[in-house]
Amino acid sequence: MHILIIGAAGMVGRKLTDALVADGGIGAKPIDRLSLVDVIEAPVPAGFSGKVETLAADLSEPGTAERLVAGRPDLIFHLAAIVSGEAEADFDKGYRINLDGTRYLFDAIRLIGDGYCPRVVFTSSIAVFGAPFPATIPDEYFTTPLTSYGTQKAIGELLLSDYSRRGFFDGIAIRLPTICVRPGKPNKAASGFFSNIIREPLNGQEAVLPVAESVRHWFASPRAAVGFLKHAATLSGDAIGPRRAISLPGLSCTVADEIDALRRIAGDNVVARIKRVPDPTIIRIVDGWATAFDAKRASELGFVAEKSFDEIVHAHIEDELGGTFVA
Amino acid sequence: MHILIIGAAGMVGRKLTDALVADGGIGAKPIDRLSLVDVIEAPVPAGFSGKVETLAADLSEPGTAERLVAGRPDLIFHLAAIVSGEAEADFDKGYRINLDGTRYLFDAIRLIGDGYCPRVVFTSSIAVFGAPFPATIPDEYFTTPLTSYGTQKAIGELLLSDYSRRGFFDGIAIRLPTICVRPGKPNKAASGFFSNIIREPLNGQEAVLPVAESVRHWFASPRAAVGFLKHAATLSGDAIGPRRAISLPGLSCTVADEIDALRRIAGDNVVARIKRVPDPTIIRIVDGWATAFDAKRASELGFVAEKSFDEIVHAHIEDELGGTFVA
Repeated sequence: MHILIIGAAGMVGRKLTDALVADGGIGAKPIDRLSLVDVIEAPVPAGFSGKVETLAADLSEPGTAERLVAGRPDLIFHLAAIVSGEAEADFDKGYRINLDGTRYLFDAIRLIGDGYCPRVVFTSSIAVFGAPFPATIPDEYFTTPLTSYGTQKAIGELLLSDYSRRGFFDGIAIRLPTICVRPGKPNKAASGFFSNIIREPLNGQEAVLPVAESVRHWFASPRAAVGFLKHAATLSGDAIGPRRAISLPGLSCTVADEIDALRRIAGDNVVARIKRVPDPTIIRIVDGWATAFDAKRASELGFVAEKSFDEIVHAHIEDELGGTFVA
Repeated sequence: MHILIIGAAGMVGRKLTDALVADGGIGAKPIDRLSLVDVIEAPVPAGFSGKVETLAADLSEPGTAERLVAGRPDLIFHLAAIVSGEAEADFDKGYRINLDGTRYLFDAIRLIGDGYCPRVVFTSSIAVFGAPFPATIPDEYFTTPLTSYGTQKAIGELLLSDYSRRGFFDGIAIRLPTICVRPGKPNKAASGFFSNIIREPLNGQEAVLPVAESVRHWFASPRAAVGFLKHAATLSGDAIGPRRAISLPGLSCTVADEIDALRRIAGDNVVARIKRVPDPTIIRIVDGWATAFDAKRASELGFVAEKSFDEIVHAHIEDELGGTFVA
């Protein structure tokens, strides 16, 4: 099996690559070729016996999409995107990469046209929803994004469903919860604090909490995200049905729940490294975010997320910190 | 006020033009200029004292959109589209006109960029919904189109909301019910029979009914459609709010309701001109269509549709037949 990952150098892309290499296959099928694409060169995974190609390329450049699919990958993960904040700040770049790039990819697959019909797994986002919404968002709730990023993802979902219905490929769009705990450095994303307040204290560093502890949001770990992607790759198109965009399961919890889990696992000393510095801008932004989903369809399709924030903290300590932390 | 109508030569475009000319203004504002655009030359309306330009142009051709908005119309009706059947039969043409053409228009407005912010009224469709759905579709129901046309309209809605949110223009997308009774000749649209069984018998002609009388659907007259467009043009953006795509009110009724109304108004002789010739293809297509909407938001915003099919038949006889029919 030949797998193409677009967005392979990002956090989720790298973890997915490592997981696929460790598994050696997906479903019952061995992987013999990996094509890893991103705007920067993706790392070559260690320990893979098959063929690996890495390519630094911009999907929104004419000709790139055609090159990527010319090798007729059986499975395509399309994870590449300009993130929410940047797509909002740079209108043209967001539409060029997130909308045009996605459409170029879909059209390049379509234009092969000789029965080639790969599985395409597209990462969408809960940003396709926009406030006001109910406390728990059902599967049949409408998408009224309040960002250009959310708009671009919602359009990608629509295209993917139509192209799948037409038989050009066999797609599935999965709306990831907010990934937490994100490894790496604190970033300026408005959602960054959800991860920062766990990651930094476990590293012996202070972290800033800019919102009230009562703030509720929707989470899954990076480990769960990789599990979602692998599961999405193996579902049958018939099982998915014509509605190809799916809200995934996640964990609905408050910042207080996060902190309680951190305290149970790492103790009061670690929790004391969280500093409360309210930020009105972040408070306002986060106030418009979804707090929970009733992800019935995805659960029936076998997608599984964490059931407690303790699991999310444990996954972070195991996967990123070698099982230890700074007490 | 300067009004641009794109799709001005179509049935709704011509009726809208005539209504605007008859009214002389919209809201409290007099109309001093009309720009009428379509792929074929639109007729010049009689009795208009202001300036009229007609232009035969294809919105999907590079440069057309820029030309259309260079005159900075205050109000733009974007009615132009490849219809459902053709967009399904010709994938490239449907996406080129219905998606790219719409985006070119929106971007041409955006790129003027000096505070120019016209009202844009975009005709969407109940084809943004795809079966299965509840008997009555609420305002917050998700859009899962089952045609490329419906997909293109749903994408147009998303773009319009995002561009409006960004302040590039002040848009509203209205999801028209099936327009009935359509004037003119019978056409091959799967929905054609809903109109044919009223229009042809009133003209002394036979008409074919290809489905059961129990089939229920969602209707508004051409007269109501013109009313929707005029009302959409005058609503304040604040009243519409950030969710710029709206399902309009209509009349939910069955084919039997249609026939009963025709009998009450025109008698048994006229009804006897309806011939029952079941068509499995049309039966299957129509089975996937929406039957009713709870168009709460639109009703609150003041959109008004017919309350009975008798009203729809009367509107047809008055507006198209000079008040008479072939008994």
